[in-house]
Amino acid sequence: MKKIKLNSSNDTICAISTAPGRGAIAMIRISGPQAIAVAEQVFEPAEKNLNISKMKGYSMIYGNLKDGEELIDQVILGLFRAPHSYTCEDVVEISCHGSPYIQQRIMETLINKGIRVAEPGEFTQRAFLNGRMDLSQAEAVADLIASTSKASHKIALQQMRGGFSKKIEYLRQQLVDFAALIELELDFSEEDVQFANREHLTELLNEIKSEIQGLIESFRLGNVLKHGIPVTIVGKPNVGKSTLLNALLNEERAIVSEIPGTTRDTIEDVISIRGVAFRFIDTAGLRDAQDVIEGIGIERTHEKMELAAIILYMFDLNDFSVEELNERIEALSEKYGEQDKRIILIGNKTDLLVEIPHDFNELVEHETIFVSAKRKENINLIIDSLLLSVEHGNIDSDTLVSNARHLQALLEALKAIESLEEGFRLNLFTDLIAVDIRHALYHLGSITGKVSSDEVLGTIFGKFCIGK
Amino acid sequence: MKKIKLNSSNDTICAISTAPGRGAIAMIRISGPQAIAVAEQVFEPAEKNLNISKMKGYSMIYGNLKDGEELIDQVILGLFRAPHSYTCEDVVEISCHGSPYIQQRIMETLINKGIRVAEPGEFTQRAFLNGRMDLSQAEAVADLIASTSKASHKIALQQMRGGFSKKIEYLRQQLVDFAALIELELDFSEEDVQFANREHLTELLNEIKSEIQGLIESFRLGNVLKHGIPVTIVGKPNVGKSTLLNALLNEERAIVSEIPGTTRDTIEDVISIRGVAFRFIDTAGLRDAQDVIEGIGIERTHEKMELAAIILYMFDLNDFSVEELNERIEALSEKYGEQDKRIILIGNKTDLLVEIPHDFNELVEHETIFVSAKRKENINLIIDSLLLSVEHGNIDSDTLVSNARHLQALLEALKAIESLEEGFRLNLFTDLIAVDIRHALYHLGSITGKVSSDEVLGTIFGKFCIGK
Repeated sequence: MKKIKLNSSNDTICAISTAPGRGAIAMIRISGPQAIAVAEQVFEPAEKNLNISKMKGYSMIYGNLKDGEELIDQVILGLFRAPHSYTCEDVVEISCHGSPYIQQRIMETLINKGIRVAEPGEFTQRAFLNGRMDLSQAEAVADLIASTSKASHKIALQQMRGGFSKKIEYLRQQLVDFAALIELELDFSEEDVQFANREHLTELLNEIKSEIQGLIESFRLGNVLKHGIPVTIVGKPNVGKSTLLNALLNEERAIVSEIPGTTRDTIEDVISIRGVAFRFIDTAGLRDAQDVIEGIGIERTHEKMELAAIILYMFDLNDFSVEELNERIEALSEKYGEQDKRIILIGNKTDLLVEIPHDFNELVEHETIFVSAKRKENINLIIDSLLLSVEHGNIDSDTLVSNARHLQALLEALKAIESLEEGFRLNLFTDLIAVDIRHALYHLGSITGKVSSDEVLGTIFGKFCIGK
Repeated sequence: MKKIKLNSSNDTICAISTAPGRGAIAMIRISGPQAIAVAEQVFEPAEKNLNISKMKGYSMIYGNLKDGEELIDQVILGLFRAPHSYTCEDVVEISCHGSPYIQQRIMETLINKGIRVAEPGEFTQRAFLNGRMDLSQAEAVADLIASTSKASHKIALQQMRGGFSKKIEYLRQQLVDFAALIELELDFSEEDVQFANREHLTELLNEIKSEIQGLIESFRLGNVLKHGIPVTIVGKPNVGKSTLLNALLNEERAIVSEIPGTTRDTIEDVISIRGVAFRFIDTAGLRDAQDVIEGIGIERTHEKMELAAIILYMFDLNDFSVEELNERIEALSEKYGEQDKRIILIGNKTDLLVEIPHDFNELVEHETIFVSAKRKENINLIIDSLLLSVEHGNIDSDTLVSNARHLQALLEALKAIESLEEGFRLNLFTDLIAVDIRHALYHLGSITGKVSSDEVLGTIFGKFCIGK
């Protein structure tokens, strides 16, 4: 249950915390024991009777930022006193004019005063090391900054607020109590007593196991909501796959970019539809319309479908045979039905058709949507159907796992608990059982950072952006 | 002397003030009479006993930003109360997690509460309209944000601090006093008296004129310092022009990009050398080495040289004739000497040479620098020489004109004053003289915004970035 301190917080760090480039305002953040002392050296209040050292936390002051005698900028300086700050250290925030040149000059001035440039995520890492948040909350900060859709935003925010942490901590605490009894038995192992009622314990284990399994199962939804629900459009050449993709993109992309400056991070071909991100897999290939599904055996298409949660199987309403269609659906369902993939038939080119064959639904017994991708007719029906995939799951759950590291830890904890159950069944010696409990505790603790290592922390915080 | 109010400040505006894209932190700024009331509606303090309406100016508070019941982000909210804020209005600054999605959601929330998205520069425009700064200071804010070199930063900062405004206001005030006497004469025009001693007035005019001329002359330096000193490299094919440019770029570019995230705005082929920006004109062409100066007549090269303040004439030390070189220098000097362009000879490819002809300086009587562009030898000598061009001028002057609009106004004011002098000389009627004085006053007043129009303000603030 040890916690390794990665960096001593004896040093003071600084970073440009706002997005790179030119803006009206930029913010440079300083954290650490020297933050206030250095701020006093480089800042001259506009009102001479004011003084940083006398300022309260959560207050601001206007004045000149100077490098020696040289004026760099007129700035607003904000002060947070330890421990009431993001990092739990003294924090000074400098809001300057957003010229990259000025940002650079202020950073240089601070560096010359002995302040170190922060590593990515180092502010949040300090917040974690100083106990302001646990590891899964810290990870959620990075997810929050990276969030691009309503769903990914919501998952990150809930995780940051600690709902998930509480659940894990609750499970861990139950296991700790359990472990205490087992360890007690170890102390008295000579006497071969059993303090822990094996039946009660088995019940408790079942409960914990089912909770962990629930969390593991939530990952599929959590992960797709975070990264976008993977969708593949397949079908014969010229059925209109790329036209459909463009229609979907055109229809919904505007929503993301209503306010200028917010779309820089939009990833090509991820479409946010009513708050949920859909990720169209290998759509460059799809656009080339080189994508043939003549036989399921074609490897590339096959792989794409493996990755997808939803497969849109498109066909030309003016050129299809019922037999072939039924064969395809059967083949797809056989292959992917078990994996819980949804397969939706899209009958395209209604614009070239007089009317849809009246007996279609009898002949082809599968969910089918009739559209004209070219004329953008009924595209909304596809969108509604895509959204159905999400609504089956409960986004509002506050214990949705969306982080692969957490999934891994949960799977390891589950393995340990299953081994524990097996141990009970086989009536193994207490010391062997104790090993499994420790494993389970270790893996649950690694999620919230009760247990952590330099390597793990380095990997987690290394993915952060600079200045957070 | 009228001031036209462009926008009534009855409405409240908001904008994302930090650079677009993803960062650790983003800031959204609200200004206007509804700023605090709306902030109270969308913000829920983390400590329930705190309350925005009871907060002092220059203070901050931590809590939840919400759209109705939905939590958008955990934010720091900073408050400035009118008139002690940038705009002289109530201002609320929201520092949120820097996800573009969150920025957009917060903007939407504010817009739904009836706050309008600010036009570019509208915060600064309000600062101007509310008398916090004059027009030339407001213009300097945009220049400051756009500054990319030490010199352009310094000019903008000095102008923002009002040194230039004071000088203009001083000149204008002298003219106002002058005008008062002249207008008095107009009131008594029936009696044909002269309150204003014409000799004194002529002296005063001379003084004002020479000040204005000084400012006009400072424009050339001010403008090149702001936009970069234009340099052209010319010479026969294969003398090493593009190699030299690359050597200059390689040598100095690193300085600009030492700190990550500061170089996005670096304009291709503007090199900041020891704080001064040099702009290499049409260097794409130069790089193609298609640039021949076989005859001065070649139009394209000719045009480039017209634009340059410094011409680097390059030749191959291993393949030149003294006669031809002297002819070239003579032709260039004849053509450009009067325009105050500097011409520097660059003898390249010292690496292929055993030694530089000992009598070179006798044969070619012109500043020459010997380099090996390929081996990057003596490139620093070129840099030193380029910097000489700047050191002749006095960057430290706090009255350097760098804005074309100001130059235009100064030229118009000068014209009016010269006409005034002429009027005195010809002993014209007082009412004719009064017209010239009013013209001069008008144009000087337009610099600081004592006189302004919707159109002028629209042009000036329309060039600002969003959020300032």
